[in-house]
Amino acid sequence: MSSSEFSIIDEFFTVKYPHVFEPVLGVGDDCAVLDIPNDKQLAVSTDTLVEGVHFLKNSDPQHLGHKVLAVNLSDLAAMGATPAWVSLAITLPHIDREWLSAFSKGFFSLAEKHALHLIGGDTTQGPLSITITVMGLLPSGQRLTRAEAKKGDGIYVSGSIGSAGLGLLKARSGVDGIADRDIAAYLCPIPQVQLGQKLLTLASSCIDVSDGLSADLNHILKASGVGATLYHADMPLSNAVQCYMSEIKDELWAYSRGDDYELCFTVPNEVSVASVTELLEQPITKIGVIDEEKGLRIQMKNGEKITLNKGYEHFNES
Amino acid sequence: MSSSEFSIIDEFFTVKYPHVFEPVLGVGDDCAVLDIPNDKQLAVSTDTLVEGVHFLKNSDPQHLGHKVLAVNLSDLAAMGATPAWVSLAITLPHIDREWLSAFSKGFFSLAEKHALHLIGGDTTQGPLSITITVMGLLPSGQRLTRAEAKKGDGIYVSGSIGSAGLGLLKARSGVDGIADRDIAAYLCPIPQVQLGQKLLTLASSCIDVSDGLSADLNHILKASGVGATLYHADMPLSNAVQCYMSEIKDELWAYSRGDDYELCFTVPNEVSVASVTELLEQPITKIGVIDEEKGLRIQMKNGEKITLNKGYEHFNES
Repeated sequence: MSSSEFSIIDEFFTVKYPHVFEPVLGVGDDCAVLDIPNDKQLAVSTDTLVEGVHFLKNSDPQHLGHKVLAVNLSDLAAMGATPAWVSLAITLPHIDREWLSAFSKGFFSLAEKHALHLIGGDTTQGPLSITITVMGLLPSGQRLTRAEAKKGDGIYVSGSIGSAGLGLLKARSGVDGIADRDIAAYLCPIPQVQLGQKLLTLASSCIDVSDGLSADLNHILKASGVGATLYHADMPLSNAVQCYMSEIKDELWAYSRGDDYELCFTVPNEVSVASVTELLEQPITKIGVIDEEKGLRIQMKNGEKITLNKGYEHFNES
Repeated sequence: MSSSEFSIIDEFFTVKYPHVFEPVLGVGDDCAVLDIPNDKQLAVSTDTLVEGVHFLKNSDPQHLGHKVLAVNLSDLAAMGATPAWVSLAITLPHIDREWLSAFSKGFFSLAEKHALHLIGGDTTQGPLSITITVMGLLPSGQRLTRAEAKKGDGIYVSGSIGSAGLGLLKARSGVDGIADRDIAAYLCPIPQVQLGQKLLTLASSCIDVSDGLSADLNHILKASGVGATLYHADMPLSNAVQCYMSEIKDELWAYSRGDDYELCFTVPNEVSVASVTELLEQPITKIGVIDEEKGLRIQMKNGEKITLNKGYEHFNES
């Protein structure tokens, strides 16, 4: 770490709030050192966001600071883990104090909500991209994987889907501001951390909706060796998303929109929808059921079944 | 994670050798899940390498795969930790199977030497850069920091310094091939993992030489609130580096060269050089002594003392 890196860290990335899981040694040495409580396991996830790919050029740095952390916390949420520590690697074209100040504000306002401790990272010069590794704790022996969905399980999703996708379209077409609910869903997603923790002892499988509901649910189906039927009439869609889908005459549009960061999870059939809803104390919707037959089918309102597989692909193979 | 990411991971990043620390859950879910032995602490370090900044454009991907991991293992070495797990975030302009195949070969050949397990990561599209987060284990209550050097402690360095710096110059000027010892030092540095582990109970402080001996030693001095005098005549320099320094008439050139990834450490004065050398069983050199007076001084062969502070800076502030 060079001395200018040190000054960046001192100036913008010093943690100023209390944490639940204090590191033995934090930022400023070759490594951070962490004590893991004896009755806990460590959950680790890494995500990179690249300018022009995962966020628009000239994105508001405060929103970006929020989003890059939210995306990673969402992975912890999907595993049922409690956030504890984070490392942050920022590559940026040059030291821009205004940008760094806004970015760190967005980053820490979300980090503080989860008493998350920044334990280290790296600042380097180059095209703008950010990689975060987030670490959380799980009770020993517990975790929410993608691989344990069983025939007959109900499929649920939190919140509504497609809003962030619509927000992206609006942001691209120049609609101004975070005041728009869809743009807010795209720019400042809220990771479902508490929901994930509650699901630890309830759900048979779980994933976060980052690449699109169909693509993400397909990961559960493949990992669990099962299939699914979704009921289109039950899909939680905001009025704005429903209007947009009517306008473009594409009833399936929302299934392949990414960036919502809601949780999609399965619950054993013997647990009633009412008791799931009561336990979780937030808007969730049962949208389908796990089948023995492989593949993902959408049952439309007219009874027609459509097979749907694609979500958002990070790479354009060419 | 999109399906093309999954195929990249399956094709190039599946671990095929045995490990000491098997993860509870590895690549392929929202998080990896790790069990930390009860008598151990976790050491974590993150480093980013960006094309054109930390490695030359069109670098050999196999060397790059080695180097990016070596740089991170070197941070674990400097803490005295035993490598256990690694996550890898690659951003690359497009899916290039030949490049990925060579990169993963270089990465895994070094990972296998340390029985290191790849537990996750991210592949994204964008300008070439690589971020690694490496996790190692330390006996509870033990670690090598930068902050415990004391007046009178001897200052030591492993191997020799400046070779990687000379290798970089040669590589830039078009000298061909890894057969050249200096170029090999630059392209394929060997992290001093075993040395770090041996130093855990011997050294008072430790850092790896990544940004240049003077800059890195200065981190120890600042963190420990002390100063140092180095004896220029004792500096371990290869013949090639000595020749080059005579040629350019700059006796201090090697002090500010980065990328050697040797360890610089301090040992209490009561431990003799002979016993340090015997314990460590590899080439190490005592190069100076910790002073009460702040700052870093080089005592030249003619008795003159020169103050030296600068190493390699990652950012050009402009």
